[in-house]
Amino acid sequence: MRKVNRRIIVAERPRYIIPTANVFSLSEALAPEPGAGEILVRTTWAGVDSYLYRRVQQVSSLGESIPIGGVMAGATVGRVEQSNHPDFREGELVHGAWGWQDYHVSNGGDIAKVDPDLPRPSYLLGALGVSGFGAYIAVTELTRTQAGEVLTIGSALGGLGQIVGQLGKLKGALVLAGASGPEKCRYALEQYRFDVCLDRKSKDFLTQVKAVYSKYGIDCYVMAAGGKVLDVALPYFRRNARIAVCGMMATYGQSELPPGGDRTGLLLNEIIVRRLRISGLVTTDWLGTALHQQFKKEMKDWILSGRIKPLEHVVEGLEHAPDMMQGLFEGKNFGKVVVHVAD
Amino acid sequence: MRKVNRRIIVAERPRYIIPTANVFSLSEALAPEPGAGEILVRTTWAGVDSYLYRRVQQVSSLGESIPIGGVMAGATVGRVEQSNHPDFREGELVHGAWGWQDYHVSNGGDIAKVDPDLPRPSYLLGALGVSGFGAYIAVTELTRTQAGEVLTIGSALGGLGQIVGQLGKLKGALVLAGASGPEKCRYALEQYRFDVCLDRKSKDFLTQVKAVYSKYGIDCYVMAAGGKVLDVALPYFRRNARIAVCGMMATYGQSELPPGGDRTGLLLNEIIVRRLRISGLVTTDWLGTALHQQFKKEMKDWILSGRIKPLEHVVEGLEHAPDMMQGLFEGKNFGKVVVHVAD
Repeated sequence: MRKVNRRIIVAERPRYIIPTANVFSLSEALAPEPGAGEILVRTTWAGVDSYLYRRVQQVSSLGESIPIGGVMAGATVGRVEQSNHPDFREGELVHGAWGWQDYHVSNGGDIAKVDPDLPRPSYLLGALGVSGFGAYIAVTELTRTQAGEVLTIGSALGGLGQIVGQLGKLKGALVLAGASGPEKCRYALEQYRFDVCLDRKSKDFLTQVKAVYSKYGIDCYVMAAGGKVLDVALPYFRRNARIAVCGMMATYGQSELPPGGDRTGLLLNEIIVRRLRISGLVTTDWLGTALHQQFKKEMKDWILSGRIKPLEHVVEGLEHAPDMMQGLFEGKNFGKVVVHVAD
Repeated sequence: MRKVNRRIIVAERPRYIIPTANVFSLSEALAPEPGAGEILVRTTWAGVDSYLYRRVQQVSSLGESIPIGGVMAGATVGRVEQSNHPDFREGELVHGAWGWQDYHVSNGGDIAKVDPDLPRPSYLLGALGVSGFGAYIAVTELTRTQAGEVLTIGSALGGLGQIVGQLGKLKGALVLAGASGPEKCRYALEQYRFDVCLDRKSKDFLTQVKAVYSKYGIDCYVMAAGGKVLDVALPYFRRNARIAVCGMMATYGQSELPPGGDRTGLLLNEIIVRRLRISGLVTTDWLGTALHQQFKKEMKDWILSGRIKPLEHVVEGLEHAPDMMQGLFEGKNFGKVVVHVAD
């Protein structure tokens, strides 16, 4: 009897300012069957990455839009369930990016074997995946954070932010973080030893931000969420500060310009006066580069030695992936979101 | 009898949006007298640089404000008129930055001798001065313009722009320029062989800009004037384009935000989607670096070999420097403005 392949598909284009789960729906189909030289993979883990929400939009600014009815994109880990391929045997773990579905047929070209040394294969979706690599590029290449410098990150426990902050500490920087809620802040301070963590949900958040920024100044700024914080930070950048723009979650769904005058000129003026360097990052550009190889080696070592401690927010069941995509934009995740699809 | 030292002083802080000449006034004083180990220099040339207007403002964003009554800052060339210093003899040419005045007394520490190989000592105020060096940093370091790339510069004949464009051609780039008026455009196309030069004064300037940008795309953008053009250019940046922000003449006098919504978020979004790198440049930061030495050598060679042809807009008489400062912001200069103070 053919297996059922549950798939989370893009059911409609987003209609609201805030990304919502209702653009997705669960659809069942017969699982594909592996032909000669192919393998059938059972998904065990699927990643939820905010940057991929862009590909749900009508006009995607990054990569092609996923067609209506198409399976939602996402990094994945799975177990070989059937193999007609000489290099893979049943039971082996592999990883790739076959999206939010139970099954995938591969000829081996779009998957790789999971390194058996890893404490958890799901780390390939986070600390060792696009979010960890993005953090690595942002810290080591785009901002080139140095010991003694002040590094600022908005989401202390997010997939990107947790690694940015930990890399900052590892490099001897002082880390100023933000997170939504006191529990996250406590975690960031206690577990990661970030120097400051401000609660985005506190009423006087912006006042606190200003106080902290003016006390420390900012040398390096890794921006994942966008929004008002850059504007607040602008007067506190030290000379030659570097800003890596990795995500603009706050504006993905924006359908009109924020009110008030145009502040672009102010930003450009500060770029000169403070000698800022601002770089845009799309992590997938860097896959397969020498830096990617170096990252994989270093990050694995750091994880094995306990110098980097990935924090996962595990969601049980593929059907909950859409809620968590929405939840990411609402700051509901406590760590990198990974969906446990099957054992 | 003591000589009279005519000085252009800062008489009041700017009150208007557009920089105006009336913040300066001409003031006469007795010329200083050189003491033991000092020399008296007669100014022969003085530079007019838009970036120094910032120092006239109440709160200067670059360097200290010039006090009311203080001599306006500016690069200078002069002739030793009296020397009590063993290293300098009367009649020798020296250069420095003693500002808009007829005379200067130096102990030798703030001046350097003019290289006798130079075709014109006034080149030290332009192509070999801050504007030329700024252009060199922008092209070779900040945008790293490569052969075959498209380089855009707003002011084809300005002190910075003329060198940016010529360096671009020298490196094999395609140069898209703008200038105010058909004569300047003709000069840029015929003398400098820039590939395109659009007349800022033509009625459909922005339409032409869009047409040209969409035809060629933009890899490197050296921004001296700011204003609306970046906004127009934004959709045409190629992936990994580099932007050097060297001046924001359009906003120096801005007292309120331009109306309409805040476009900062759009800019940040494009920074990601197009993987832009934006760097602020304050040329004076780089004085005395290894790059500065390299620039001085290379630029001198290029000038002597005719590969770089500096274009000067010579103004006769120190008293006209203030008008030309205002004129710079109105696009009235036809080349780098240098004031001929005395023979």
